[in-house]
Amino acid sequence: MRAPNDLSHMAGAVLAGLRARKPRVHCITNTVAQAFTPNVLLAAGAVPSMTVARDEIGAFVASADALLVNLGTLDAERRAAAKIAVETANARGIPWVLDPVFVDRSVARAAFAQSLVAARPAAIRLNAPEFRVLAQAEAGAEEAMRYASETGAAIGLTGATDLVADRTRRATLANGDPLMAKITAMGCAASALVAACLAVERDALGATAAGLLMLGVAGEIAAQEARGPGSLAVGILDALHALDGATLVARAKVR
Amino acid sequence: MRAPNDLSHMAGAVLAGLRARKPRVHCITNTVAQAFTPNVLLAAGAVPSMTVARDEIGAFVASADALLVNLGTLDAERRAAAKIAVETANARGIPWVLDPVFVDRSVARAAFAQSLVAARPAAIRLNAPEFRVLAQAEAGAEEAMRYASETGAAIGLTGATDLVADRTRRATLANGDPLMAKITAMGCAASALVAACLAVERDALGATAAGLLMLGVAGEIAAQEARGPGSLAVGILDALHALDGATLVARAKVR
Amino acid sequence: MRAPNDLSHMAGAVLAGLRARKPRVHCITNTVAQAFTPNVLLAAGAVPSMTVARDEIGAFVASADALLVNLGTLDAERRAAAKIAVETANARGIPWVLDPVFVDRSVARAAFAQSLVAARPAAIRLNAPEFRVLAQAEAGAEEAMRYASETGAAIGLTGATDLVADRTRRATLANGDPLMAKITAMGCAASALVAACLAVERDALGATAAGLLMLGVAGEIAAQEARGPGSLAVGILDALHALDGATLVARAKVR
Repeated sequence: MRAPNDLSHMAGAVLAGLRARKPRVHCITNTVAQAFTPNVLLAAGAVPSMTVARDEIGAFVASADALLVNLGTLDAERRAAAKIAVETANARGIPWVLDPVFVDRSVARAAFAQSLVAARPAAIRLNAPEFRVLAQAEAGAEEAMRYASETGAAIGLTGATDLVADRTRRATLANGDPLMAKITAMGCAASALVAACLAVERDALGATAAGLLMLGVAGEIAAQEARGPGSLAVGILDALHALDGATLVARAKVR
Repeated sequence: MRAPNDLSHMAGAVLAGLRARKPRVHCITNTVAQAFTPNVLLAAGAVPSMTVARDEIGAFVASADALLVNLGTLDAERRAAAKIAVETANARGIPWVLDPVFVDRSVARAAFAQSLVAARPAAIRLNAPEFRVLAQAEAGAEEAMRYASETGAAIGLTGATDLVADRTRRATLANGDPLMAKITAMGCAASALVAACLAVERDALGATAAGLLMLGVAGEIAAQEARGPGSLAVGILDALHALDGATLVARAKVR
Repeated sequence: MRAPNDLSHMAGAVLAGLRARKPRVHCITNTVAQAFTPNVLLAAGAVPSMTVARDEIGAFVASADALLVNLGTLDAERRAAAKIAVETANARGIPWVLDPVFVDRSVARAAFAQSLVAARPAAIRLNAPEFRVLAQAEAGAEEAMRYASETGAAIGLTGATDLVADRTRRATLANGDPLMAKITAMGCAASALVAACLAVERDALGATAAGLLMLGVAGEIAAQEARGPGSLAVGILDALHALDGATLVARAKVR
C-alpha cells in the first residue's frame, strides 16, 4: 500500500504536469456546470471542450486527452452523447471519469449509470447517497475498496472528508471548506479536475487524489478571504490558478 | 387586509424556515439562469435541482418541496417538462411559481403561458410588459389584485418598485438597487426564491413578498460595496448567505 | 484607408451609441456562454435575448437590432435556429456576426460554418486556427483582407494581438491581458459585443474594432486589480459598465 505521503507528492507532480502539458478534457456535463467547470479546468492548466451534440462528440473525444461523463440534467442528447463518448474513449485508451450525479433521485438515471460503470471508467467520483445506490453498500472505506475491486475504477467518495480508494489502497483527504457545499456544481468541477489529472497520471488513485486535493486546497485558501459563497467561488478560481506544487504538497492533509 | 408590517415579519420567519428546513426546489428554468439560480437558492438555505429531461422530471418534482416553472429559452424539452412537472405538482399539492419570461416577445410563448396560468400556480412573478400581455390590463395595483382574483395566484409584479397582490391584499416593496437590472437572470432568481418560500409558508402573498424582500435587501447590502454589476452579483450571493431575519425585517421597506 | 486613429474615436462614439440606444442583440450561442455573454452585453449598455427554440427564434430575431451566431456546442436545435435566424436577419437587413468556434476540431461544424459564411455575415470573429480552416490561408493581415474581400464581411482575428480587416483597410488592436485567455467564453463575449456595435454603427470594420477594443480595454483595467481569472471575469463586467468613451479612446492601442 502506497504511503499517504506519496499521494501528496504525486499531486504536486500532477499539477506540474497539467501546467506543462495542458491536456484537453472533453466534458459531458450538466447545464448548471457549463461555465464553472471549464473555468476550473482553465485555472488548473487544462483546456476544456464541452459539446454534447451527437454528430460531433466523437471527433471531440477522439482528439481529447481525457473525458468526463457527468450525469446531471440527463436529457436524451446527453445520454446519446455519453454512449458515443465512452465507446470512443475506450477504443482509444483515453481515460474517463464517471460522475453519477443524483442517481439517488431517479431510478432511470441509476440504471443508466450502472451501464456506464460496466464500461469501466478509470475513476468514479460521487457522494455518499450516490455511492449507496451504485455500490449497494454503506459509504465506508472497506466498501469503497470492494467497489473499486468490482468495477476496476478508482473511487473518489467526497463529503466533509474525502475518501479515495482502489483495489488495494485507500486514503482520506481532509482539505476543503464547509462553505464549498453552498456553491452549485462544485462536485462536478472536482470530477472534471480528476479527469484532467488522469490525462497526465495513469495511476488512477493518484490522479483522483490529486484532483480532489487541488480543489480542496484552493477552497481552503480562498475561504480565508471569502465573505460568502459568491466570493468563495471567485476566489477558488484565483487560488487554483495561483497554486503551485510546493503549496499543494505542504497543505495536503492525506491520511 | 394584512398590515404591511406583517409582511416584513413574515419574511423574517420565512427566512428562518428556509434555513431550518432546507426545502428542495425543482427548477425548470432557462439556459441563462442555470448557475445563478441554484447559487441563489443555496445561499438562502434551499436545495436546488434542475433537470428538464422528460423521463426523470416527474420523479424529481414528486420528491421536491416546491417547483419553479420559468419560460425563458422555451424549447421543446422545457415545454414537455413543464407540463409533466405541473401535473405532478398539482397532483401532490406541491406549490409552484410561474415566471412567464418574455411573453411580450413571442405569441407562441404567451399562449403556452396562459395554459399554465389555467393550471393554477400558487404565485406568478413577472414584470410590467409581461403582466400587460397575460392580464390584458395595465400594470397597476388594482389590476394586479383583479388578476390575482381571476387566477387564484399571488402576483409579484417587479420593477423599480415591486408590487405584491392577492385577491384581497396588496403592498409595495421598495428594496433593491437599480444596478440589479444589469445582471442577467436576476428576475429568474427572484422567482426561484419565491418558490423556496412557498415551501415553508403557505400564505402565497407572504411567501411572494418574502422571496422578493430577501433578494431586494441582499441587493441593497451588496450594492454598498459593489463596483459594478460583476461584483454586485457576487456580493448578492454573499449577502444573501449572511442575511438574518432581524436584518431582513429591519431593512424591509413594505407599504 | 482610414487612419487607425479614426477607429479609436469611432469606438468612443459607438460606446456612446450603445448607452443611448440600448440595442437588443439576439444571441444564438453555446451552453458555456449563456450567462457571461448577456452579462457582458448588459454591462456595455445592450439588451440580450438568448432563445434557440425553433418556434420562437424567428419572432425574437425579427424584433432584434443585431444577431450573433456562435457555433459552440452546436447541437441540432442550434443548427436549426441558426438557419432560421440568419434568413430572418437577412430578410430584414439586421446585421449579424458569425463566431465559428472550434471549426478546427470538427469537419461537420466547419462545413456548416462555410454555409453560414455564404449567407454574408456583416462580421466574422475568430481565432487563428479557426481562420486557417475557414479561409484556407495563414492567419495574417493580407490574408484577412483577402478573406474579407471574398466574404464581404469585416474580419476580427483575435489572439495575443487582435487584427481587424475589411476589403480595403486593416489595423491591429493591442489591448487586453493574457489572463483573459484563462476565462471561458471570453471570445464568445467579444463576438456578442461586435454584434451590439453593428446595431449602432453600420461601418462593419469600425463596429468590429469597437467591440474588440471595449473588451480589451475593460480587460486591461480589470487586470490591474485582479488576483486571477475568477476576479478578472468579475472585474471585466465592472470595468465595462464603468467605461466611458474618453477612457476608451485614450487607452485604445490601434495601429
